[in-house]
Amino acid sequence: MEFKKVLLTEDEMPRQWYNILADIKMNPPLGPDGQPVKPEALAPVFPMNLIEQEVSPDRWIDIPEEVLKVLSIWRPSPLVRARALEKFLDTPARIYFKNEGVSPPGSHKPNTAVPQAYYNKVFGIEKLTTETGAGQWGSALSFACSQFGIECKVFMVRVSFDQKPYRKSMMEAWGGKCVASPSRETNAGRNVLENDPDTPGSLGIAISEAIEAAVSDESGKTRYSLGSVLNHVMLHQTIIGLEAKKQLEKIGEYPDVVIACAGGGSNFAGLAFPFVHDKINGKNIDIYPYEPTACPTLTKAPFVYDHGDTARYTPLLPMHSLGHAFVPPPIHAGGLRYHGMSPTVSQLVNEGIIEAKSATQLDAYKAGVIFARTEGFIPAPETNHALAGVIDAAKKAKEEAKEKVILFNWSGHGLIDLTAYDKYFSGELHNFVLTDAEMSESEKVFENFPKPQTLKSR
Amino acid sequence: MEFKKVLLTEDEMPRQWYNILADIKMNPPLGPDGQPVKPEALAPVFPMNLIEQEVSPDRWIDIPEEVLKVLSIWRPSPLVRARALEKFLDTPARIYFKNEGVSPPGSHKPNTAVPQAYYNKVFGIEKLTTETGAGQWGSALSFACSQFGIECKVFMVRVSFDQKPYRKSMMEAWGGKCVASPSRETNAGRNVLENDPDTPGSLGIAISEAIEAAVSDESGKTRYSLGSVLNHVMLHQTIIGLEAKKQLEKIGEYPDVVIACAGGGSNFAGLAFPFVHDKINGKNIDIYPYEPTACPTLTKAPFVYDHGDTARYTPLLPMHSLGHAFVPPPIHAGGLRYHGMSPTVSQLVNEGIIEAKSATQLDAYKAGVIFARTEGFIPAPETNHALAGVIDAAKKAKEEAKEKVILFNWSGHGLIDLTAYDKYFSGELHNFVLTDAEMSESEKVFENFPKPQTLKSR
Repeated sequence: MEFKKVLLTEDEMPRQWYNILADIKMNPPLGPDGQPVKPEALAPVFPMNLIEQEVSPDRWIDIPEEVLKVLSIWRPSPLVRARALEKFLDTPARIYFKNEGVSPPGSHKPNTAVPQAYYNKVFGIEKLTTETGAGQWGSALSFACSQFGIECKVFMVRVSFDQKPYRKSMMEAWGGKCVASPSRETNAGRNVLENDPDTPGSLGIAISEAIEAAVSDESGKTRYSLGSVLNHVMLHQTIIGLEAKKQLEKIGEYPDVVIACAGGGSNFAGLAFPFVHDKINGKNIDIYPYEPTACPTLTKAPFVYDHGDTARYTPLLPMHSLGHAFVPPPIHAGGLRYHGMSPTVSQLVNEGIIEAKSATQLDAYKAGVIFARTEGFIPAPETNHALAGVIDAAKKAKEEAKEKVILFNWSGHGLIDLTAYDKYFSGELHNFVLTDAEMSESEKVFENFPKPQTLKSR
Repeated sequence: MEFKKVLLTEDEMPRQWYNILADIKMNPPLGPDGQPVKPEALAPVFPMNLIEQEVSPDRWIDIPEEVLKVLSIWRPSPLVRARALEKFLDTPARIYFKNEGVSPPGSHKPNTAVPQAYYNKVFGIEKLTTETGAGQWGSALSFACSQFGIECKVFMVRVSFDQKPYRKSMMEAWGGKCVASPSRETNAGRNVLENDPDTPGSLGIAISEAIEAAVSDESGKTRYSLGSVLNHVMLHQTIIGLEAKKQLEKIGEYPDVVIACAGGGSNFAGLAFPFVHDKINGKNIDIYPYEPTACPTLTKAPFVYDHGDTARYTPLLPMHSLGHAFVPPPIHAGGLRYHGMSPTVSQLVNEGIIEAKSATQLDAYKAGVIFARTEGFIPAPETNHALAGVIDAAKKAKEEAKEKVILFNWSGHGLIDLTAYDKYFSGELHNFVLTDAEMSESEKVFENFPKPQTLKSR
């Protein structure tokens, strides 16, 4: 029988994460004074052990034994040959995906939630606050906190909170607490609600609320946790790409094309960075982050210094940004509704090492349904954006009659997002197009900020 | 690092199913004339190749290559050592489970949906009808039909249809059609609605509707498919237990206790029958099917001849039954709300080879939450009944200070059942107790039917 999945044993799990900071040049984050932020300044927000990891220049960082133990609940994840999809597309391409939907919350998010909960626990922290878009991250952190016996409080973007009630239930099953954001529990939330009581919310607002809730706890035992954007998050996710490499090696394959969806950048970075390392060292690979056309951070927004959150609590980060006050259209891929982007992913796009692309909501769902009816698993709305890219790449391989190897990240399942599929089938979903006028308006917020330098890593 | 999961490669997947009919004596199903049903009489309902399998006396039956190919989307499933649960329970027992939640619909059900869709396809059938309780079976069959390009129509018990709207969406994502049962599309459904327009429905009624929809299609290209009870279903599920045996062998273990929940009996049979085979051949194992106390088919109802459905379309089956007109209380484990039980499982209970037990709804959810917060994965309400049994067995091992090996079937995840967890947390769930008066009332329906013989297989 032809093989379908390539598995690794737990003994073959990577023992180190890959840190891309060892391989690229970065503009530093800036404080309110316009000067590079000192690690100590972040101490009220994150535990020092994670801050040290955030700024580490080491290429390889050991994964603690306690973290591996929890990851082994579902890792290593399967690498799957999408034979039925290949056949449906009648493509000469060989398509492989990492199935990150096998984790308890159903996505790649616990890859970083688990080490973050661990490092906070070790540092003596008793409670974590966070934001969540579609709910994938909030449920992942609730799960991780339950594994290490710490509290978890989640601010969930209102539009997703309303669309995906099961996500809150999931967080509660693991003992987490979840409120809709903007909420009345923080100054940041109350300010937004005063101006716009019916706001769908945004990741930017929810981040502000979660940071405020952490730093305002006077016990000093609460910290904030972020599910994307920062480098320690990208780092933790590289276990995906490192496993994929080992798995492909076992069957004598290497990718020509690497694809993942990108909201804040973590599932993309997780799969792609180990291959970016190879590309920097001379390999010829096309690497595409796919974002929604409704929130075109990498494909249309400029590379600037901007805040990661709406209330401007975060340092200025060097990244592609639609403006920290931008509220993305209510597409059903909540995890991709973010005004900014991981600085490392932004830098790679900026240098042309990777090439950003976008997919419309309807193309994404169309691709998702094709996948469900060929490969069986129902994908998350975010994952559907990667799938739209995979189908494009497979068609291109067919046109060129080339046996390309396409690798993509199946970042999560869509079993909690089924109402969105209902709407797709009943014709209620549509595409959103941002006008140039809307974009220049939203980008005014960073006009007077310092500008990042043009850096060349190669 | 201590291992967590025991994996098999696709090459190690069992190539044959185990047929318990080779090892036990059974009363035959009876037709309307009181005589054993001839296989041909079932031809309007099932394709002949499956009917032949249903009555086959062969101990081992080859799994077709095309079936293995689809099963390999998620199989072999992991065998997991529940170390965190063991620690939480402070038990000397070693607890292992088969994670059947890794399939696309999230349960063990596709193990039989896939071969059933395959055999129907090979026989030239273009459409399958079926019933579903919690929706696990209906979604599994929709998935399987999408893999073989045949239509799927599902009658879903109304109480579950209302409680679990995502299940319908899931079926539709795979191209299946789903209606609430009783529906107005069949005589069986219309008759029930006339007497009781607000009925929560039952599996017995839904089965009647699905059979009627199949046999009344004049094209001859529609057949009915059942997700439990019948022997070919039990047979297809034995891949679970056969894998588990191989996996336990790899680590030098053998179970002292085998546990699974039982509604119609298929996930129980799937895990347990290969071990029943060993027990019949002299092994000392405790084998427990766990049912809800609200629907105590095996633990309280008599072993009789009764119909499998409410409208009495099916032959008389020798089984434990609460009466074919019985409508179980609306507990949130829809898959366990069935008046009858697989005849093979019934026969084994009757002979004392296995011992039926029951769990209350509240004990089941309590166990499910403990599992979610230790082992990570959120279990289906049905699976929670097995978990209540596992916790009991682990406590007993502690009391006796014995290093027992407990093996159970984690039959599916609860991500589509999260509203039930919400209700559990908010105190809205309660236990149902059937009174003796209610039972004698519901059992009147089979008073005048023939009685099965007492048979001894050993």
